[in-house]
Amino acid sequence: MKVDGKHYRTLRAEPAAKLVHVIDQTLLPHAFETRALDSPEAVAEAIVTMRVRGAPLIGVTAAFGLALAMERDPSDANLVGTLDLLRKTRPTAVNLAWALARMQQALAKAPPAARAAAAWQLAQAIADEDAAINEAIGRNGLAILEAEHFLRKRTINVLTHCNAGWIATVDWGTALAPLYMAHDRGIPVHVWVDETRPRNQGLLTAWELAGHGVPHTLVADNAGGHLMQHGLVDLAIVGADRVTRRGDVCNKIGTYLKALAAHDNGVPFYAAVPTPTIDWEIDDAIEGIPIEERSGDEVRIVRGFDEAGRPASITIARETTKVANPAFDVTPAKYVTGIITEKGVHPATEAGLAAARPAR
Amino acid sequence: MKVDGKHYRTLRAEPAAKLVHVIDQTLLPHAFETRALDSPEAVAEAIVTMRVRGAPLIGVTAAFGLALAMERDPSDANLVGTLDLLRKTRPTAVNLAWALARMQQALAKAPPAARAAAAWQLAQAIADEDAAINEAIGRNGLAILEAEHFLRKRTINVLTHCNAGWIATVDWGTALAPLYMAHDRGIPVHVWVDETRPRNQGLLTAWELAGHGVPHTLVADNAGGHLMQHGLVDLAIVGADRVTRRGDVCNKIGTYLKALAAHDNGVPFYAAVPTPTIDWEIDDAIEGIPIEERSGDEVRIVRGFDEAGRPASITIARETTKVANPAFDVTPAKYVTGIITEKGVHPATEAGLAAARPAR
Repeated sequence: MKVDGKHYRTLRAEPAAKLVHVIDQTLLPHAFETRALDSPEAVAEAIVTMRVRGAPLIGVTAAFGLALAMERDPSDANLVGTLDLLRKTRPTAVNLAWALARMQQALAKAPPAARAAAAWQLAQAIADEDAAINEAIGRNGLAILEAEHFLRKRTINVLTHCNAGWIATVDWGTALAPLYMAHDRGIPVHVWVDETRPRNQGLLTAWELAGHGVPHTLVADNAGGHLMQHGLVDLAIVGADRVTRRGDVCNKIGTYLKALAAHDNGVPFYAAVPTPTIDWEIDDAIEGIPIEERSGDEVRIVRGFDEAGRPASITIARETTKVANPAFDVTPAKYVTGIITEKGVHPATEAGLAAARPAR
Repeated sequence: MKVDGKHYRTLRAEPAAKLVHVIDQTLLPHAFETRALDSPEAVAEAIVTMRVRGAPLIGVTAAFGLALAMERDPSDANLVGTLDLLRKTRPTAVNLAWALARMQQALAKAPPAARAAAAWQLAQAIADEDAAINEAIGRNGLAILEAEHFLRKRTINVLTHCNAGWIATVDWGTALAPLYMAHDRGIPVHVWVDETRPRNQGLLTAWELAGHGVPHTLVADNAGGHLMQHGLVDLAIVGADRVTRRGDVCNKIGTYLKALAAHDNGVPFYAAVPTPTIDWEIDDAIEGIPIEERSGDEVRIVRGFDEAGRPASITIARETTKVANPAFDVTPAKYVTGIITEKGVHPATEAGLAAARPAR
């Protein structure tokens, strides 16, 4: 996708220099800067601090972290140690474990001397695949928007939570991919952008949409139910960090509340995910998916810019105020209209998602 | 209630000096300052900018605004003009219209020369009544907390949204009054405090609770559903700006989302209000109650304090980002377990609320 007219992917590998270039998303939308990651430790730090974020992009970046590790020391011990380091960075997204498992499988059987080259190659293949998957998600979601537009013959209002745009992936995004495609084809869309406290990823979504010229309105996370009650939302599309085979959706904290409101008001609610986001093992999503508890400072300290336009931060609550900061929640499948993947739009049921299951 | 060991009411009238002293709540919790209002225009400004906020306190403050007006000019024309000025300050809360109607009724039949004295007297009576009403709300809500504690024999976890504490009233508060009383009687309570974007009134609630020593934890507005799914909330209590005779609850934006989550998880959901908050006329709450749309800058600009501890603000989104900022939403009665008033705890139905209806 484009930033100031220049085409970017969120990640660019430079194997010859042993570097992985990423956008530092902690500075967005207030500043656009890239960072060169030169070690698995730097990759882990970037994921933990959310310089790199979004389930699909985390998986790809971790894969490149293994390539950097194999350049330094291609031994079995370092392979195992690096896998462990990267796997622990964030517990909720399933793409991370999926990408690392795929890397492990390929690298473990390669002789150490061949591992670095193999790692760069496979990580790049995963990255290219992610962009292609998301383009397919976009096409599948586009069909839903086209149908809504055919039906209503007016601008289609879509609510989204968090950021599941191109910067959360290698390119295109998941939830936002259909919106970009609809806009490009002249289907009028307008996006209600949830602020998404505490990290305010809605600002990233607004920045992406503005960059692409898609009309949008920023709202506090509290507003979505009211908008739906008044007929101002035609459908909701979110991304997800993990979807169970039964169709439960684990996504950014607050997603569940919007799904409840959508259900209460007859608004279709979709999650758009690449199939590697689907966890085929887990039974009870609410009990089984580990929900990351992040630092209370993410609630206490708000980032933005000062009067001079410089990136700055402000404290809204002191350390003496106790804070809880769960990063994700689970939306039960019964509140989900469908799961949009690169393979199609599936009912959020075990039978419906069977079509998305990889051959074994 | 107490601030730094000193007893305060949120409002103190000084008729001899023709002044009404209020706490400037836009500076809380970052600074505690009072302001002396000396004219109806100053009162209107304080209400519009939310220096004075909370449905009960707005009504009382507006009543004193009429006293200030009658001091300056007790004519019929000024009475009507001031009523109009004050009524327009905020459209959603019904206490404002109620208090002004009560003042109008008394003042219209008084001779102009007697109006100022009558206005001070009646406004003070409304203020004293508010404190007494809220103490009764506290006792009625306390019974619910006592029952929960008797049943569970552990700390009772209560979620609240926005600020319906003593600073939203003359004293005691509405939703928080039962919590203060429970704490004072040794019933262990812990309060989940919703941040309440965009104005962050949750910080006021945290400040109040800290001042009184009530254990609490601040959370982003997005977190409540997740907490309820995991059994971490025993009940929810909120205030309200308007309750219909059928039990629909109009309160701070986002309340509806928490009520949906409470319903989905079998968590009792109460609104605590003085009976003047009940609108006996309106039929369709969602269509009929005017929802105030406030400035987008409330979303764009966040207040807090800088590294030196000075009150400061930060911009999270530029003016080029379109923002919608509806200030209230409506929770349908079917999601409300009960309405706590000074007269008792009523089912959220027309029959249930009949007991709260004033004699005519």
